[in-house]
Amino acid sequence: MKIAILGYGTVGSGVGEILTTHRNTLSVPLELVAILERKEQLHRHPLMCDNIESILCDPEIEAVVETMGGIEPAHTYILRALKAGKHVVSANKAVIARYAQEFHNCAKEHGVSFLYEASCGGGIPWLHQLHSVKRIDEIDEIEGIFNGTSNYILDHMTKESQTFQHVLRKAQELGYAEADPSADIDGMDILNKLRISIMLAFDTAVAETIPVFGIRNIQKADLLYPETADYVLKLLAVAKRSGNHYDAVVEPTLCPLSSPQSAVRDHYNLTCLHGTTIGKLCLLGQGAGKFATAHAIVQDLTDIVLGTAYDSPSFAQSLTYDGTILRSAYIIRTTLGKSQLQSILGKHLHHCDTFAAYTYAHTDVLYKAKMHQLMKEIVNADAQAFLMALAQMEE
Amino acid sequence: MKIAILGYGTVGSGVGEILTTHRNTLSVPLELVAILERKEQLHRHPLMCDNIESILCDPEIEAVVETMGGIEPAHTYILRALKAGKHVVSANKAVIARYAQEFHNCAKEHGVSFLYEASCGGGIPWLHQLHSVKRIDEIDEIEGIFNGTSNYILDHMTKESQTFQHVLRKAQELGYAEADPSADIDGMDILNKLRISIMLAFDTAVAETIPVFGIRNIQKADLLYPETADYVLKLLAVAKRSGNHYDAVVEPTLCPLSSPQSAVRDHYNLTCLHGTTIGKLCLLGQGAGKFATAHAIVQDLTDIVLGTAYDSPSFAQSLTYDGTILRSAYIIRTTLGKSQLQSILGKHLHHCDTFAAYTYAHTDVLYKAKMHQLMKEIVNADAQAFLMALAQMEE
Repeated sequence: MKIAILGYGTVGSGVGEILTTHRNTLSVPLELVAILERKEQLHRHPLMCDNIESILCDPEIEAVVETMGGIEPAHTYILRALKAGKHVVSANKAVIARYAQEFHNCAKEHGVSFLYEASCGGGIPWLHQLHSVKRIDEIDEIEGIFNGTSNYILDHMTKESQTFQHVLRKAQELGYAEADPSADIDGMDILNKLRISIMLAFDTAVAETIPVFGIRNIQKADLLYPETADYVLKLLAVAKRSGNHYDAVVEPTLCPLSSPQSAVRDHYNLTCLHGTTIGKLCLLGQGAGKFATAHAIVQDLTDIVLGTAYDSPSFAQSLTYDGTILRSAYIIRTTLGKSQLQSILGKHLHHCDTFAAYTYAHTDVLYKAKMHQLMKEIVNADAQAFLMALAQMEE
Repeated sequence: MKIAILGYGTVGSGVGEILTTHRNTLSVPLELVAILERKEQLHRHPLMCDNIESILCDPEIEAVVETMGGIEPAHTYILRALKAGKHVVSANKAVIARYAQEFHNCAKEHGVSFLYEASCGGGIPWLHQLHSVKRIDEIDEIEGIFNGTSNYILDHMTKESQTFQHVLRKAQELGYAEADPSADIDGMDILNKLRISIMLAFDTAVAETIPVFGIRNIQKADLLYPETADYVLKLLAVAKRSGNHYDAVVEPTLCPLSSPQSAVRDHYNLTCLHGTTIGKLCLLGQGAGKFATAHAIVQDLTDIVLGTAYDSPSFAQSLTYDGTILRSAYIIRTTLGKSQLQSILGKHLHHCDTFAAYTYAHTDVLYKAKMHQLMKEIVNADAQAFLMALAQMEE
C-alpha cells in the first residue's frame, strides 16, 4: 500500500523510519511515497512536497497518515483525503475529539477506514482493546493515566522531591514537555483522549461539560503532606456509565501505594477498562515517544491492508452526562482560612490541617462534579489552590 | 456459526453462558448446539451428549471449543476436529504446550483456524498482543505473572501474614485452588504458558529444559525477613532472546515495591513484552475465573467468524536454549550451615544472615540457569530450602 504522511515532526518521522529502516520485519508491504511539509522543511527528505493537491490527486496513494496536530488544516485535509477515497490514520487527538463523528460518517460514505489508535495512550493498543472487548461485553467504566508529560512531572517531583518548575524545565530539556506545556499540565490533552475513549467505550457522542483540574498549581508541600504518605499522586481520567447516563472527570488523584496506578513511572501511561465478562483489564506502556506512537500508526496501516480494521462506531447510544455517578473525598490545599472554606464547602468540610504554612482541607465523600463546582469558588479566592481526590468511590 | 463445547466445567460452562445469556451483546451470531460430557453429567443440560462421533460427524458444527483439560483425549479430539474441517478453540495449556506444532500443521492442512487465547493469562489478550506486535516488531523479551492461584497465595500470605498452608486451604475453599494444587504451586502450569508464549513471541519450537522453581517451600519467615522489606515476592516467568538463542526461567522473584509486578493482587495476572519500536507493554487482568477465561474463548470464535483470526505461527526461527543470558542475585533460605553452603555455592556465596532460626544465604549475580543447578544440590541436602531471585539483571 502506498502511503503519504502529512506533517513530518517527531511522530510522522517515526512512521517514516519504521516504513523504511524496519521494513524487513513488517508483515505487509507499506511504502512511503510522499511527505507533506512546509516549504522551509523540503530539503530534509527527497519525498517532501508542500502541495496537498499533489497527494490528494495521486490515485496510487491509498492511505494518508495525518501527524500535523492542531485543528486546521488537519480537519480539512482529513475530510478531503477521505472524500478522495483514501484511508486516513491520524494521531491528532484534538481534531478527532472534536470531529470524530463527521470523519466517521465521511469514511463510511466513501468506503474507506478512519483509524486513530495513536491518538490515545501512544503505543498502548487502547482503542483496539475497547473495540475488541465491546464485541462481547458492555463496558461500564474506563480509567487511566493518559498523559506522559504530566506523569513524568509528578513522578519526578515525588522521587526527587523537586519543585514543579524545576521538573518541568528538565522535562522540556529532555523533549518530554513542549515549550508551552499548558495542554499537558492543565489536563486538556487528557480531556481530548478521555472524550475519544468515552465515545468508543460507550458508543456515544460526548458532551462538552466534563470537569477538569490539572497540575499547574501543585506545590512540593502537597507531596510531603503526611496525610498523603500512603498514596502516590497521579493525574487520572475516569468515566463511568450507569444506565443511559455517564459521569466523567480529569483530576489529580491520590492512588494507594499498592495500586497499579502508583507504579506508573516516567512518561508511561496506564489505561483500564471494566467489562461485563472480562472484568478489569489494564494496559501499561509508553504513552508518548517517537517510535511507540509511530508503532500504533503502523498497526492501523497493517489492519487496513489485512482487512482487519474495526468498523466505525455506530454512535448508537445517546448517553447524557450526569454528575451524580462518581464520588470521592478530597484534600484541598489553600491559603484560605477555615471560616472562608466553611462558607464555600458548607457541610462537605470534614476537617482542616495546617502544614508548611498552608491549610489542608479534608472533605467528606461528595459527587466529583459538585466538588469541581465548589473548587471554582475556592480558586476565585485563592488562584493557587490545589485539589487532590482520595480513594475513588463509586455508586 | 454453530459451536460444540467439549467439557462443561467452569470455563466450558462460562462459554455456554456467554453464548446464551449474553447473546444480545455479541457482535456476531454464535450458536451453541452441542456439549460433550461424561454420561453421569448428561442431565445437567439438554444439549449434552457423551458421544464425540455425533459432534465430529455433524457437518453443521463449524467450530469446536475444547475445555476438557489434560492431554488425552483432548489431543485426539482436537486433531480429529481439525481433520473434520472444524475450527478449534482451546483453553488447554498442557496439551497446547506439548502439541502446538502438530495442531497448527493440521489446521493449516485442513484450512481451518486453531486458536487458544484463553490458554495463557485467562481474560488477558496476551497471545493476541504477541501476534499483533510481531506484525511490526521483533520481540526480544517476555515476562509475567501467569498463574492466579500462586499469586493469590503469595498476595494473601504477604497481606495477612499467614502461613502457606493456611492461605492454600482458604484458596481451595474459595475455588481459586484445586484439591491437588501441584501444577499451580510447583510452577508447571506457568511453564506450559511460558512455553506457549515463547513459541509465539520468538516464532520457534521450545526446548524442554527450562528451569523451574515453585513456591511449595515458602515459609512465613521468608516474607518477614528484613532484607525483603522493600520488595514483593512474586512467582515470575521470564524469557529473553539474544541472537539465535533464548534463555528462560520460572522462579520466585523479589520485585521492587514500585514495580508493576508488585501491584498484582489476588488471582490477577500481569504479562509484559518488549519489542523493537513499541518498547515495553504490560497487560494486567484476570488470569483465571469463569467468565474472564470464557471471554477470551468467545473472542477467538468472533475472530473466526469475522475472518480476522491470526495465521498459524511459522516456526521459522529455530532458536536454541542458552542458560547464559539471564542473570540475577539470589537469596536462599535453608537449614544448612555456612560451610555446607560454601561447598555448594563456592565463589557465588556473598554472605549469610540468620533469621527466625534459618540461614539466609545471599549470592552474587550469576546466571539463573547455573543457580537452578546449584539449588538442586542444596535441595538434595535440605528438601525444604527456598530460593528468591532479586532484581533481575540482564546481559
